Amino acid sequence: MAIPSFPEKVYIREVGPRDGLQNESKFIQTDDKIQWIDHLSNTGLNYIEVTSFVNPTWIPALSDAEYVAKHIKKNPDITYAALIPNIKGLSRALESSIDEVAVFISASESHNKNNINKTISETEIVLSEVVKESISNNKTVRGYISTVFGCPFEGHIEIDQVIRLADSLFEMGIDELSLGDTIGIANPSQVKQVLEKVLKRYSPESIAMHFHNTRGTALANVLASLEMGISKFDSSLGGLGGCPYAPGASGNLATDDLNYMLTNMGIVTNINPVELNSAALFIQDKLQKPLDSYSVKYYESQH
Amino acid sequence: MAIPSFPEKVYIREVGPRDGLQNESKFIQTDDKIQWIDHLSNTGLNYIEVTSFVNPTWIPALSDAEYVAKHIKKNPDITYAALIPNIKGLSRALESSIDEVAVFISASESHNKNNINKTISETEIVLSEVVKESISNNKTVRGYISTVFGCPFEGHIEIDQVIRLADSLFEMGIDELSLGDTIGIANPSQVKQVLEKVLKRYSPESIAMHFHNTRGTALANVLASLEMGISKFDSSLGGLGGCPYAPGASGNLATDDLNYMLTNMGIVTNINPVELNSAALFIQDKLQKPLDSYSVKYYESQH
Repeated sequence: MAIPSFPEKVYIREVGPRDGLQNESKFIQTDDKIQWIDHLSNTGLNYIEVTSFVNPTWIPALSDAEYVAKHIKKNPDITYAALIPNIKGLSRALESSIDEVAVFISASESHNKNNINKTISETEIVLSEVVKESISNNKTVRGYISTVFGCPFEGHIEIDQVIRLADSLFEMGIDELSLGDTIGIANPSQVKQVLEKVLKRYSPESIAMHFHNTRGTALANVLASLEMGISKFDSSLGGLGGCPYAPGASGNLATDDLNYMLTNMGIVTNINPVELNSAALFIQDKLQKPLDSYSVKYYESQH
Repeated sequence: MAIPSFPEKVYIREVGPRDGLQNESKFIQTDDKIQWIDHLSNTGLNYIEVTSFVNPTWIPALSDAEYVAKHIKKNPDITYAALIPNIKGLSRALESSIDEVAVFISASESHNKNNINKTISETEIVLSEVVKESISNNKTVRGYISTVFGCPFEGHIEIDQVIRLADSLFEMGIDELSLGDTIGIANPSQVKQVLEKVLKRYSPESIAMHFHNTRGTALANVLASLEMGISKFDSSLGGLGGCPYAPGASGNLATDDLNYMLTNMGIVTNINPVELNSAALFIQDKLQKPLDSYSVKYYESQH
């Protein structure tokens, strides 16, 4: 069998400061968050989702969004993004000079309702406004679809529903779409099936994959995606964040483990693993609990 | 890009009672080992490596090899194997009516020396005798080559050295060869490169892959192997065993995680996940420490 070729270069979207920290019970001090994001800016990462402008009562962990977004040292080669749920959040973000706006919707009606107390249709109306306003403010926009591979409430998700939402988001004007395995249930065959349909309509460059490692399959799912031509992946340093639907289980794919596999496969990421590890140890120290990543555990076994 | 086809059925070689337990510091009581292996025999697994007939002073954890091998309830549909280092070990194994003999050698001179205090050439002479004697006693034989993808002492391993040892073992008369990533350093590209060379000489049916999950890449490496036509994998229930070269880090690929990914990909394993989980919880309870597998952690997050 022929060995399939992989993309030569992969772009990692670091989501730890947002998707990681929002799922940690411990509040990380604002100055520590800023210091950590500045550390991440020195690793070679070219994309960092730094915070979320949701209502602070929803996610107290990120209630310092404005301050963080304003006080990090911005490197012009890095895209600093923030999650935005609505126009009010967008106004706060625009005042904080964020580069990119990330909007989110779930492929599952019940997960969407549970997450933001709106139907999918109601959410589409809100996002349409946010995307329009973002574009008129010269911001690029990223769309997230969550529960693409399965829902904690409904189970199976139809690929056609994912395609419908992808169409809706791209019609609004998003630049990139991230397909999320929110509960870490995807398997490589399913990843290929979903991507086969998605890539009939959209270029691989416009699609990112967002895997959780709840069942340990995230890197296998990355491999399946690479084989389909995908070169953009979301991950969280150290696997920060856990899984809200499975307390104690793993959540986000760890950036350091992803970077290990990719660079050992000869794929360019331009990320310095020593700096990455140092940034992981920094936030582990602030969290005061062991991070999930294999890279951190391996490092600690040798030191 | 075309989606590659995978083998329809995969055979899992459960190595937990040997490769798992030999790397655990806690001695599991002989009766508990027997009860656990009997439990494993009821999961649908058709291959269990139950113990090792090495010198008990080398591996005290398995010093009860004869008693265990004699007292487990043998299901005629299951192959019960044991690791055998030399003729003395073989005599003990033959008295204990084991179905299959497993012999081992390292692709790395320094790892082989460190492991069994013999050069590779000296080891080949010993194994040649063991294989010959096993065959004349109507036993099937499995060969292990360890450190195929990298050595804890030497680093890089030449594929040609692996091929030379594979030739040597198959010439001796082994039925199946297991290629081991002893320190969990392999990546999917490397797996495909090694297998491309190996499968030019040997059929995929005669090759098994033995991955460790030290860097979290084991399931991605399984996927790469499946794509090359490999349908036999070694694993250890719950990830039992850890890594002797990285204390605290993960070791063997977990059978339950492997079975989760395979069955969700639609690949037949005939293993009952509920029974498998129950057997994992049994040995976790005896070990008195949390197992590494995602499946166990996920199960516990829900119960």
